[in-house]
Amino acid sequence: MDAYHQLVEHAKNISNFHHLSAICGWDQAAMMPNGGAEARAQAMAALHVHIHQLMNQPQLAEWFEQAEQASLSADQQSVLREMKRGWQQATVLPESLVQAKSIAGARCEHAWRAQRQENDWTGFAANWEEVVKLSREEAQIRAEATGKTPYDAMLDIYEPGASSEALDHLFNDVKSWLPELINHVLEKQSGESVIMPQGNYPCANQKALGLDVMKLLRFDFNHGRLDESVHPFCGGVPSDVRITTRYNETEFVQSLMGIVHETGHARYEQGLPKSYAGTAGGEARSMGIHESQSLFFEMQIGRNPLFISHLARLATQHFNAHNDPVFAVENLQRLYSRVKKDFIRVDADELTYPAHVILRYEIERDLMNGAIEYRDVPELWDQKMQDYLGLSTQGNYRQGCMQDIHWTDGSFGYFPSYTLGAMYAAQFMAAMKKTVNVDDAIRSGDLTPVFDWLSEKIWSKGSLFLTDELVKQATGETLNAYYFKEHLTTRYL
Amino acid sequence: MDAYHQLVEHAKNISNFHHLSAICGWDQAAMMPNGGAEARAQAMAALHVHIHQLMNQPQLAEWFEQAEQASLSADQQSVLREMKRGWQQATVLPESLVQAKSIAGARCEHAWRAQRQENDWTGFAANWEEVVKLSREEAQIRAEATGKTPYDAMLDIYEPGASSEALDHLFNDVKSWLPELINHVLEKQSGESVIMPQGNYPCANQKALGLDVMKLLRFDFNHGRLDESVHPFCGGVPSDVRITTRYNETEFVQSLMGIVHETGHARYEQGLPKSYAGTAGGEARSMGIHESQSLFFEMQIGRNPLFISHLARLATQHFNAHNDPVFAVENLQRLYSRVKKDFIRVDADELTYPAHVILRYEIERDLMNGAIEYRDVPELWDQKMQDYLGLSTQGNYRQGCMQDIHWTDGSFGYFPSYTLGAMYAAQFMAAMKKTVNVDDAIRSGDLTPVFDWLSEKIWSKGSLFLTDELVKQATGETLNAYYFKEHLTTRYL
Repeated sequence: MDAYHQLVEHAKNISNFHHLSAICGWDQAAMMPNGGAEARAQAMAALHVHIHQLMNQPQLAEWFEQAEQASLSADQQSVLREMKRGWQQATVLPESLVQAKSIAGARCEHAWRAQRQENDWTGFAANWEEVVKLSREEAQIRAEATGKTPYDAMLDIYEPGASSEALDHLFNDVKSWLPELINHVLEKQSGESVIMPQGNYPCANQKALGLDVMKLLRFDFNHGRLDESVHPFCGGVPSDVRITTRYNETEFVQSLMGIVHETGHARYEQGLPKSYAGTAGGEARSMGIHESQSLFFEMQIGRNPLFISHLARLATQHFNAHNDPVFAVENLQRLYSRVKKDFIRVDADELTYPAHVILRYEIERDLMNGAIEYRDVPELWDQKMQDYLGLSTQGNYRQGCMQDIHWTDGSFGYFPSYTLGAMYAAQFMAAMKKTVNVDDAIRSGDLTPVFDWLSEKIWSKGSLFLTDELVKQATGETLNAYYFKEHLTTRYL
Repeated sequence: MDAYHQLVEHAKNISNFHHLSAICGWDQAAMMPNGGAEARAQAMAALHVHIHQLMNQPQLAEWFEQAEQASLSADQQSVLREMKRGWQQATVLPESLVQAKSIAGARCEHAWRAQRQENDWTGFAANWEEVVKLSREEAQIRAEATGKTPYDAMLDIYEPGASSEALDHLFNDVKSWLPELINHVLEKQSGESVIMPQGNYPCANQKALGLDVMKLLRFDFNHGRLDESVHPFCGGVPSDVRITTRYNETEFVQSLMGIVHETGHARYEQGLPKSYAGTAGGEARSMGIHESQSLFFEMQIGRNPLFISHLARLATQHFNAHNDPVFAVENLQRLYSRVKKDFIRVDADELTYPAHVILRYEIERDLMNGAIEYRDVPELWDQKMQDYLGLSTQGNYRQGCMQDIHWTDGSFGYFPSYTLGAMYAAQFMAAMKKTVNVDDAIRSGDLTPVFDWLSEKIWSKGSLFLTDELVKQATGETLNAYYFKEHLTTRYL
C-alpha cells in the first residue's frame, strides 16, 4: 500500500475511536446519570490517550513526506493537506505543555462556575493568569510551526486560513454601521407590542412540535436523533447525528428556534461526502462554516416571516392553542426579531450578537499577541461595551468578561467563528437567490431547492477546498460584510 | 511497580475500553437509528481489535509469572486468579480459529433468522456443521489448556468451576421429580380461571409503573437508567447500569416482570465491590450467579404473592383501573404462576423452564464431547421433549432445535446458567429466611433486609471467591436441588 493510502487507513482507524468518543460524549450530556461521571471520565481519558498515541506514531512523518512526493489526484491532495494540518496541530505541542494547560484549564473552569456567581474577579484572575500564560506558550509554538502570528496560529485550529488581517477588515466594516443600525431598529421597535408566551407548554408537546419542524427541515431520522441536555449541541457522527435541546415549560420560543439551529448543524454533518468518510476530506470545513449552516437555518430560514407562518401553524396544533394571540403569525414574528442591548452574548439577538463577538475577538487577539495583559481585560471589556452597545460593566464581571466558558480553559481563537458564520450565511443566501426562488420554497413548505443548493455548494464539499475557495465557488466572491449588512437592514429596518 | 500492580493497572486500562464498548453497545440496541449501524459496526470492531491487542501484550505472561511468586494477600490472590483465567481464556485460541469461528458464526446466525421462519433444517445444518466443527476445535484447545473435558472447558467460560459431573448430578435430581410435578400442577390449575389483560396499556404508563417498581426494588437511579430495546437486557457498567424492556400496549404483564428481572441483574452490578472496580475481582462471579440475582428478584420476590399485591396496587394506580378484575390481586397471582407445557424456552414458565434447559445441556455436552454429531440433534431433541414435556417436535425444527440463537454462533456451554441461577436463587432464599423475615419485609414494602443480605453475601463479594466457596459461605452448603424442589412444590402445589 502506498504512503497516501496508509495515511487514509490510519485516519479511518482513528476516526473509529472518534466515533466512540462522540457517542459516549453525547451519552454523557444527554443520558448518563450523575453517578456514572467518574468512571466515564476515566474511560474517556483512556480513549483520548489512545487517540493521542495513534496520532503520534513515528511512521506518520515519513508517510506524509512520501505522500507529498507521490502523484495524487486533486481530491487526494486536498485530503492529504487536511490530514497533515490535523496531524501537525495535534502533535506540535510538547506533552508537558498539553498536560499543564489541561490541568490549569480544568482548575480555572471548575472554580469559575462558582466565581462567576460571586462576581469574584480576583479569585478568577489568580487561576486565569496561568491559563493565559500557557495559552500564549501554545500560540507561540503554533506560530513558529506555521509562520503565522500567535493569535492567527490559534485561530487556525478553528478557522483554517483565517487571519487577523482579514477579520479586522470584516469586523471594522461591521463596526462602522452596526451601532447606528441597532439604535435605529430600537427606535422603530419601541412602539411595537409583543405578547409573551406565559403558560404551560409541556415538554412532550414541545418535543413533538420540534420533531415536526425537523421534518420540515428534512432532518434524516434514519441517521440521527433529537434528545435533551442542559447545554444544547449537535454531536454524534455523520451517519448518526445527535442533536439536543432544553425545554422550559413556561415558554417554547427558545427551544423551538434552538432545534432549528441545531438541525442546520446536523444537516451539514449528514450531508458531508460519504466517499471521504473517516478522513479529513469528509469533515466539516471549519467552525465558521459549521456555524454558517446552523445560522442559515436559524437566521436565513427560521426567522424568515414566511417560515414563521409554518411555525405558528404547527405550534398552534401541538399546543391546541387556536385563537391564542401568542401564536398569531405577526406576534411570533415580533417575538423572533426583538432587539435589545444587553450584557449576555448567549442571550443576544441577531442584531447585537456581532458586537459581543467583535469585542471578544479584539481582546483575545491582543491578549495572545502580548499587546495586553490578562489584568487589562475588565477595563477593556467595559470600554468596548460602552462603545458598541452603550452599556457599562464597570465592576460587573459576572455579566462582563467572566460570562463565557471559552476563555476559562484557553480556547482562544474560537469566538470569531460565530460572526463569520452569520456573515457566510447571509452571503450564501444572497447567492442562492440568484438561482432559487427561496421565498416560494419556504412558503410552499417544500424547501428541497434550498437544501439542494446547500448540499451541492457546501455540504458535499467537506474539506476538499480551502474556505476561501469554497465560498468563492459558491457565491462568486470571498467573504465580505456587504450581504450581512443588507440582510440585517432589510429584516430589521 | 510490582508485577501484581502492573497487572491491575493494565486491567483497569482494558476495563476503560470495555466501558466504552458497553455504553456504545447499549446505545446500539436502545438509541441508535438504523442508518448508524454500518459506521458503528466498524467503530466497535476497531475497539475490539484494540482490546484484543491489549490482552495479547507480550509482557503479561511474565507479569503473571512474577505475581504468582510474590507474597500477596488473600484478596490479591483471588484477583490474580481471576485476571489470569480471563487472560488465558482470551489468549489461548489461535487468531485464525477466532476469526474462522467468528465468520462461520456470523454467517450461520444471519441465515438462521430466515431459515428458522421457514423451518429449513437442511439449510441451517449446512452452515451449522462448520460452527460445530470449529467450536469443537475451540473446546479441544481449551480442554488441553485447562485439563478439563472439552465441554467442561467451554462451560468454564460462563460458569467457572462448573463441571458436567456436577451438572449431571443436579439435573438428574431435577429430572427425577420435575415431569411428575408439572403434571400435578397442571391438574391443579386446570380448574382455575384467569382473566387475561386485553386492552390499551400505553407505553408511558407502563414505563412510569416500571420505574415505581424499580424504586420499590431500590434500583439506584444515580447509577443507572431504564430504556427500551427489542431484546431486553442489562448492560452498561457497575457505575452506570442500563436496563431495557420492551412494551406491548395490549398487555403489561410480561414487560413488568421483565423489569423486575433486569433490576435483579442491575442491583448485582450496582452492588459489586467498588474497591476492585476495573479488575476481575470487581466483576460478577459467573453467568449462573448473575442469573441467580435476576431470578431471585423475579421468582423469589417478584412472583411472591405478597409482592404481587404491591404490583396490583401500583398497576391499578398507573392504569387508573380501579375495580378492573384484571388487576385483582388473586388474578394477577394466577397470571404470574400459570404453567403450560410448550415448545419455546423463552416463553416458558418457572416450572417447565428447567426441562428446556436440561434438554439443551445434555445435547450440547454430548455434541462438544463428540458423543453425537450435529445431524443427530433434531431426533434427540424430539425424544427429550417427549420424555420431559410430552411434546413432539418431529419435523418441527423452528419450534425445536432451531428456536434459540445461542448455538448459531457457537456459544456452547451457556444454557446451564439459566437453571443454575434458578436453583441458586431458591437456595439463597432458604438460607436468607433463617435470619430475615422475608415475608414481613415484602409485605411492608421495605425490602431493605432482603437486599442487605444479598449485598453482604453475594454482591459485595464480586469474584473474590470461587462459586462453591461463595455459595457455601452464603448458605452453609454447596449447590443442591433440594431448595429448588421445595420452592417449586410450595409455590405450585
